[in-house]
Amino acid sequence: MTASPGSDEPEDTGYCPFFQHASELIGRRWTGSIIKVLGERPLRFSQMRTAIPGLSDRLLNTRLTELEQEGIVERSETDGEVRYGLSGKGVDLEPVIASIAEWAATHACESMQAQPGKRR
Amino acid sequence: MTASPGSDEPEDTGYCPFFQHASELIGRRWTGSIIKVLGERPLRFSQMRTAIPGLSDRLLNTRLTELEQEGIVERSETDGEVRYGLSGKGVDLEPVIASIAEWAATHACESMQAQPGKRR
Repeated sequence: MTASPGSDEPEDTGYCPFFQHASELIGRRWTGSIIKVLGERPLRFSQMRTAIPGLSDRLLNTRLTELEQEGIVERSETDGEVRYGLSGKGVDLEPVIASIAEWAATHACESMQAQPGKRR
Repeated sequence: MTASPGSDEPEDTGYCPFFQHASELIGRRWTGSIIKVLGERPLRFSQMRTAIPGLSDRLLNTRLTELEQEGIVERSETDGEVRYGLSGKGVDLEPVIASIAEWAATHACESMQAQPGKRR
């Protein structure tokens, strides 16, 4: 957790393109919540829509396609019903989801005060 | 980590608006990397620009304003030099940053394969 002061080299500063990609992937609109609810159990498309208020069919479809391409979400079909669940790579996001949830719970009030009207 | 199957109540599914807000805040373009490099030490504006390749003055300014409004980043002035550092609330994001970094390190190759050309 230390860096040489005055260095101009990006390598010394803690910047990492893989981290950058991961944080922006997880933080895309609704993506964190999609991963979080799928962490509970695999769900059908309609169940995800019900689980996440305000999420549209179109955007859920876009996010699921992205998450499948990233290998985080997997589709499975049983008795003609398609369900979406987390892959091993998706399950590995559990500590990320848990740490965000803990931070959000600790700092919920300050966070929502910065955005009046967003409190439920 | 369990939910009642068949329930239509958002409260049972793991969805949480505070979590939603937090994950999208952290995942905004460059925000994760800004928090990560400030976790090393407080930095001047120009040092952050050097630390994070590709980040423009305009966008860094926007992100710092947002993070100050959220109480995550604090400005301090010493001997006429303005530095940006993490507040207590920002330091509390350390487990989030660390868990994303660990996931990114473990799954870097698969992630970057999904976005050809982004590998450095």
